[in-house]
Amino acid sequence: MSASSSCSELSYKLNKHLEQDCPAPPVSLGRAWAEAYPSAQSPYKTSTHEAKQCVPDLLNLAQGVPGHSPSSGLLQRVQLELEKDCMAAASYGPVFGAPELRAALAEDMNQRYAVQGEQCRINVQNVAITAGANMAAAVAFQAVAGPGDAVVLPTPWYFNHQMTLASLGVDVIPLPTSAPFFEPDPSSFAILLKDEAISRRIKALVLVTPNNPTGAIYSEEEVLHRFADLCKDHGVALILDETYRDFLLDESGAREGQEVLKRPHTLFSRPDWQSTIIHIYSFSKSFAIPGWRLGALVAHEALLAGAISPQSFGPVAKALDNYQICPARIDAQRAVAWAIHDSNEKTWRLQNAKSLLARRTAFLELITAVEKNGWKVECTGAYYAYVSHPWVRVSSEIVAKELAQRVGVVVLPGAFFTPAQSRESAAQRLRFSIANVSIDRLRELPARLELISQMELA
Amino acid sequence: MSASSSCSELSYKLNKHLEQDCPAPPVSLGRAWAEAYPSAQSPYKTSTHEAKQCVPDLLNLAQGVPGHSPSSGLLQRVQLELEKDCMAAASYGPVFGAPELRAALAEDMNQRYAVQGEQCRINVQNVAITAGANMAAAVAFQAVAGPGDAVVLPTPWYFNHQMTLASLGVDVIPLPTSAPFFEPDPSSFAILLKDEAISRRIKALVLVTPNNPTGAIYSEEEVLHRFADLCKDHGVALILDETYRDFLLDESGAREGQEVLKRPHTLFSRPDWQSTIIHIYSFSKSFAIPGWRLGALVAHEALLAGAISPQSFGPVAKALDNYQICPARIDAQRAVAWAIHDSNEKTWRLQNAKSLLARRTAFLELITAVEKNGWKVECTGAYYAYVSHPWVRVSSEIVAKELAQRVGVVVLPGAFFTPAQSRESAAQRLRFSIANVSIDRLRELPARLELISQMELA
Repeated sequence: MSASSSCSELSYKLNKHLEQDCPAPPVSLGRAWAEAYPSAQSPYKTSTHEAKQCVPDLLNLAQGVPGHSPSSGLLQRVQLELEKDCMAAASYGPVFGAPELRAALAEDMNQRYAVQGEQCRINVQNVAITAGANMAAAVAFQAVAGPGDAVVLPTPWYFNHQMTLASLGVDVIPLPTSAPFFEPDPSSFAILLKDEAISRRIKALVLVTPNNPTGAIYSEEEVLHRFADLCKDHGVALILDETYRDFLLDESGAREGQEVLKRPHTLFSRPDWQSTIIHIYSFSKSFAIPGWRLGALVAHEALLAGAISPQSFGPVAKALDNYQICPARIDAQRAVAWAIHDSNEKTWRLQNAKSLLARRTAFLELITAVEKNGWKVECTGAYYAYVSHPWVRVSSEIVAKELAQRVGVVVLPGAFFTPAQSRESAAQRLRFSIANVSIDRLRELPARLELISQMELA
Repeated sequence: MSASSSCSELSYKLNKHLEQDCPAPPVSLGRAWAEAYPSAQSPYKTSTHEAKQCVPDLLNLAQGVPGHSPSSGLLQRVQLELEKDCMAAASYGPVFGAPELRAALAEDMNQRYAVQGEQCRINVQNVAITAGANMAAAVAFQAVAGPGDAVVLPTPWYFNHQMTLASLGVDVIPLPTSAPFFEPDPSSFAILLKDEAISRRIKALVLVTPNNPTGAIYSEEEVLHRFADLCKDHGVALILDETYRDFLLDESGAREGQEVLKRPHTLFSRPDWQSTIIHIYSFSKSFAIPGWRLGALVAHEALLAGAISPQSFGPVAKALDNYQICPARIDAQRAVAWAIHDSNEKTWRLQNAKSLLARRTAFLELITAVEKNGWKVECTGAYYAYVSHPWVRVSSEIVAKELAQRVGVVVLPGAFFTPAQSRESAAQRLRFSIANVSIDRLRELPARLELISQMELA
């Protein structure tokens, strides 16, 4: 039974899970802060107002956004799909998305993960295309956990995971990680599972690797397989969010002068993967198309279409019907299905991964220059860097807000990724989404960080 | 605390709210049935197989789908938007959708509902663009009701409303309606509200007008305003789903030789509308673009962005962030913003509404021809007709299934729109989505219905 909160201007009451338990959306909050920055109103125009001319452009590193456009090939392809069949794309599609895209992703995963053995192969029936990866996660959570159940999230967490679970009345159990690796510890998870009162309520463990916000990449044998074993043994779903997996380069390949993407892990070659793992993927980052809203959920067919009879429907089919009916068409899906396999497109993505790594290297060097001012990169991936700021007694929210408003650098506070009771350790940290902008623009950072480092923050 | 169900092939358990309380998606079920019909595999091709040549094409009247393409102007416009700014559309947009579309819809609503008085006017801040109207409804439900709360749905209900509420652990309280008007009775609702134990749990009443599945249009003064008064007095949200409002023609206008769309009702001229009403709209039907996934939620700003401070976020902002981040772009939204006001586009929509009415008239005549076989239209709107079938002792699910498989007519059973304990009254009814196909195709109905009427159904 949920008590309701109230807002004096409304005659009806609000759901406390959404109103009180679910915090404000961090990215929108970041946008609001950025708006208080002088140049934010017209970031790309030279202002006629003199005071504005002295203010450098806003540097938004809050939301994880590709700092470049999609490939010209993909843009052309989506226009081609539209010209070919603009009318068909305007009608409803299947709840699990375009069959072409489901098949292309399944085949791509079999290659990328080098899946061994017929029973392990990912098939079209294992794939649901969703209106973004948040939708995939929301539906995965709902499929396995209801009000009063619990889900384990390593902290720092991806905020929308916690927000969605809280809004559904599902308890979140934090599993803390710490510097320098920010890797969750299977032994700590095992201890949680030993307490039967808690264990009975735990329906899922969520691992995000490469991680948001830390960028940490979980080491394969020690961590991922031990977690998978524990999940399997205790009837807990392992929800594996790999939104950032396509930015891992294979260093050994590079030595031979031919770069390839790295095999992320060997979990999909476990004969039990289907019964244990729910994989989440996003097309937003790899293809640089967040606005098209395309993600995927890959799991046992029983979870998707149901397994009892050919006309049955699993929880994912139901939840997706409720929320999306079908992913938007016009017709990104077929264009992306083509782009998955086209060799020029593959090269484009590989180059993209390379330039992100170059950006990361540049970022690390740039922050070294302000280490004297108290800035330090704690952990970093291709997309995000988790960074300590100099103000020991100032909360991360205030630092982030002031950074945006005073020097036009928008980042997200560490507090957004942690439960309230463990905010302290996150208070000195900020997440920089370094993939958003060019190296040239990143070069503006040290001067701005140095400037604000000399200021007193409330 | 939710008990979990299990599936033997999975090591993890499933959420009972989604697995047990939320039924299978009716439209997908209809698709599965249709697949058993011989011509379903290649419905638009002449089969070389002789047996197939005798089988008439599948006639799918299950899902509510526009039976025509979007306007050529809108299709051109979306291509224009893509050519102009394909790259920008690939990046994230605001959580509440494109400002142009929010503003265009607000202005259009002020005109369509002839909103009186400055305090009643619908502004851009009242409008959130959602990835379809199901998303808008899911988010509205979540904003006001949590696990253990209750929401009142007149029956027959729109199945996704019941499915979504059940999946969230919210109890559904049915409010039965009956032939010939299928209009819910405010007095019955008042009786529910008098029982304090029940009343305390009721967070919302959902009215769908014109109705899905019955097509009933609720009469303004007697029904809508009395419901609004009751909701306001008891702190209950009135969720008003008007997906089908743009198919109502003003008959008085027609007499002067100039047809216009009818003002749906006067609720938005109540000074208290913002504090009481949450309006849901869909672009899918009016613009014939269901695949683009565009709907809207219109309500008090406190529900959307929050009202406590400029940086606060209401429950709708949070839930939309969790599920959609932003509606898909590339860039249907700006094209539709243009189409709302373009006069040619308005004419196209008006003609469309007219042809739907003609289709309805034709449908009524066609069913009269099989009244002798026990078929009867109970109620009808522009999109749907709620029809009795001849088999007194056969459930509506079996009739719908057999209709699809034996004579290739796909409709939805009445049972999908009602709670289990009141299936009996719905057992003899089917929902025909008559907007889906041309009058010529509707003419195939009587012969097929006559044919199956002579068969024994299990």
